[in-house]
Amino acid sequence: MLGNFTYCNPTKLYFGKDALNGLKEELPKYGKRVLLVYGGGSIKKNGIYSRVLEILQACGKHVSEDAGVMPNPTVDKVYEGIARAKEAKADLILAVGGGSVCDYAKAVSVSVNCKEDFWDKYFVRGEEPDCETIPVGCVLTMVGTGSEMNGGSVITNRAQKRKYGHVFGSDFYPKFSILNPEFTFTVPKYQMVSGIYDIMSHILEQYFSDTDDNTSDYIMEGLLRSLIHSAEIAVQDATNYEARSNLMWTATWALNTFIAKGKSTDWNVHSLGQALAAYTDATHGMTLAAVSMPYYRLILPYGLEKFKRYAIHVWGVSPDGKSDETIAREGLAAMEAWMRKIGLVMNITDLGGKRELVEGYVEATRDREGGYKTLTDQDIRDIFQASF
Amino acid sequence: MLGNFTYCNPTKLYFGKDALNGLKEELPKYGKRVLLVYGGGSIKKNGIYSRVLEILQACGKHVSEDAGVMPNPTVDKVYEGIARAKEAKADLILAVGGGSVCDYAKAVSVSVNCKEDFWDKYFVRGEEPDCETIPVGCVLTMVGTGSEMNGGSVITNRAQKRKYGHVFGSDFYPKFSILNPEFTFTVPKYQMVSGIYDIMSHILEQYFSDTDDNTSDYIMEGLLRSLIHSAEIAVQDATNYEARSNLMWTATWALNTFIAKGKSTDWNVHSLGQALAAYTDATHGMTLAAVSMPYYRLILPYGLEKFKRYAIHVWGVSPDGKSDETIAREGLAAMEAWMRKIGLVMNITDLGGKRELVEGYVEATRDREGGYKTLTDQDIRDIFQASF
Repeated sequence: MLGNFTYCNPTKLYFGKDALNGLKEELPKYGKRVLLVYGGGSIKKNGIYSRVLEILQACGKHVSEDAGVMPNPTVDKVYEGIARAKEAKADLILAVGGGSVCDYAKAVSVSVNCKEDFWDKYFVRGEEPDCETIPVGCVLTMVGTGSEMNGGSVITNRAQKRKYGHVFGSDFYPKFSILNPEFTFTVPKYQMVSGIYDIMSHILEQYFSDTDDNTSDYIMEGLLRSLIHSAEIAVQDATNYEARSNLMWTATWALNTFIAKGKSTDWNVHSLGQALAAYTDATHGMTLAAVSMPYYRLILPYGLEKFKRYAIHVWGVSPDGKSDETIAREGLAAMEAWMRKIGLVMNITDLGGKRELVEGYVEATRDREGGYKTLTDQDIRDIFQASF
Repeated sequence: MLGNFTYCNPTKLYFGKDALNGLKEELPKYGKRVLLVYGGGSIKKNGIYSRVLEILQACGKHVSEDAGVMPNPTVDKVYEGIARAKEAKADLILAVGGGSVCDYAKAVSVSVNCKEDFWDKYFVRGEEPDCETIPVGCVLTMVGTGSEMNGGSVITNRAQKRKYGHVFGSDFYPKFSILNPEFTFTVPKYQMVSGIYDIMSHILEQYFSDTDDNTSDYIMEGLLRSLIHSAEIAVQDATNYEARSNLMWTATWALNTFIAKGKSTDWNVHSLGQALAAYTDATHGMTLAAVSMPYYRLILPYGLEKFKRYAIHVWGVSPDGKSDETIAREGLAAMEAWMRKIGLVMNITDLGGKRELVEGYVEATRDREGGYKTLTDQDIRDIFQASF
């Protein structure tokens, strides 16, 4: 049953091969000073940097830069960004990159005028901003996180060995996002496949919770089928526009709050993956992939009906003459085979994890609730152990 | 392949049993004078009127009323609404009703300060407003049209025997909509079933166009499966909250621009149904139901792949050992059986249509393009003839 909720998503999207033209429509709405935020410099190699800069200059903007945002953006880097945004007196933060860059831009946006320590206030205590913020716009170059149309931001505290996310309200969403599927053509395969699993995990973590028969469940099954199909094409043919455009659109809708409305959700896989990343700095989607199968096999008996439905509707498992558990387990087996086929990393060792650090991973795991089973520390320990 | 598009939907939704509380959050954002728009008075019988009025008064609003909006709102009624809104100096138009009431409120909103004749400007010539408009909010009491989260407005010109729609841009969407599934419990079965087919037709008219493999196609298949499932429950059990909430949420997403993004669409069934309604004043969804099967059977050979996909993924037709055409036709047969089962009117005679007026229906049919076959006048004549 769909519970009480409000829905409002004000982000304006420009999608397609001509999407960058949207920047020309958006920039005049903001003041003269733009802080251009990006990562390790791949946008300079693939030409996106110069195309964006050209438009910024044509629109008469004064541009400051904040480069070097890392894949798991750190607390220290956010402090640096705050200083740069203050110095630049930025009227707009323009994030050009993937989810990490967008997440980082949002963290800087809400922290520039924050009177307390931003990590404690937002990421540890989970409070909302009560200060003036700087509007954020995104030019997306990698898909997966959905950060382009939500209030999510995930930041890593290396010193504390914690990677925590916070979901800010719709006032803090990007004002606009530019989604050109061609911009993702040059993403290395490892990162692309990781992003694909991030999308899948977002959908699954909203799907595998609740026993109600919601419209959202049917929509999620559609999104999953499209994702599975397009991912296989994209892995074979990196410049297949149709597959890339479908992946990009699926990623956005997998995590812009839509499919979670009115139902409960289970973010345990993200919680487990983020604990691992806090120690290893491994690529986000790969950390999710490594812990997923042990987690889902553990909770399967507690959510049997949903796992059975998943097997039949998403993976096309034939139910004829089989027990519910057999059907459900065949669905997970099909999922695992697909994960291996597209090249996901399925064990912690390959991500730099170590058996002797498992107790640390358990401690760094934030969530226990939301799924079909409330996790005990022993459950979490077992999942990590089974992920090697 | 997903083409170029922009997406922005600023309407804020309050959903669920407590949704009406959202009105208390929204009303303070607008001026003191509210024009309360509603239909034939069913909201007075089911108590929604007094609940809304109580909140308006508690929020200190000065309320004027514009009642008697009919199921196919007319040009003459809009002129009356314009006069009332002017007289009331309305700061907000609050529509309490189904799609007709919401459509009407939008038409009044954009016409109050329009310097030309609104029918010619918006509905005949399809232009956008260039005058000041009055914000609209909706309290939905019937599902189907999706008008609560889009810019659509359909108005009937009785003198000209024309029923035309216009889709206004996102600046003219309702600012907020209150969606309480319980408010639809008292809708008579005939109207509810009609609304259900309106939802289905919205999805199908966006689905049966294009040969690309878009994420939207998968989402639409999910929406359709949910709709088919929930409709059967709602028809049996009028106060089943889960079914009603799923129908309401599906209706909103079936026509808030989301599933059409990046693809072409086919609005011929609406065009045919509206031509019929211009003569008969028949209930909207029933006019769509009456012409659908002849239309889809006519275009099936031109869109065979999609009709086959529809049969398998939406209706569960087994493809084993059958020709594509057989699979596709079995899908339509399953659809027709379901339509009869839930109680849709499947022929024009029962809606007040007359064979001797078919030439008039043909003339009043606005569209020819968008589907798998460009319709000729003879095609349209054949569809109407086959709909008796």
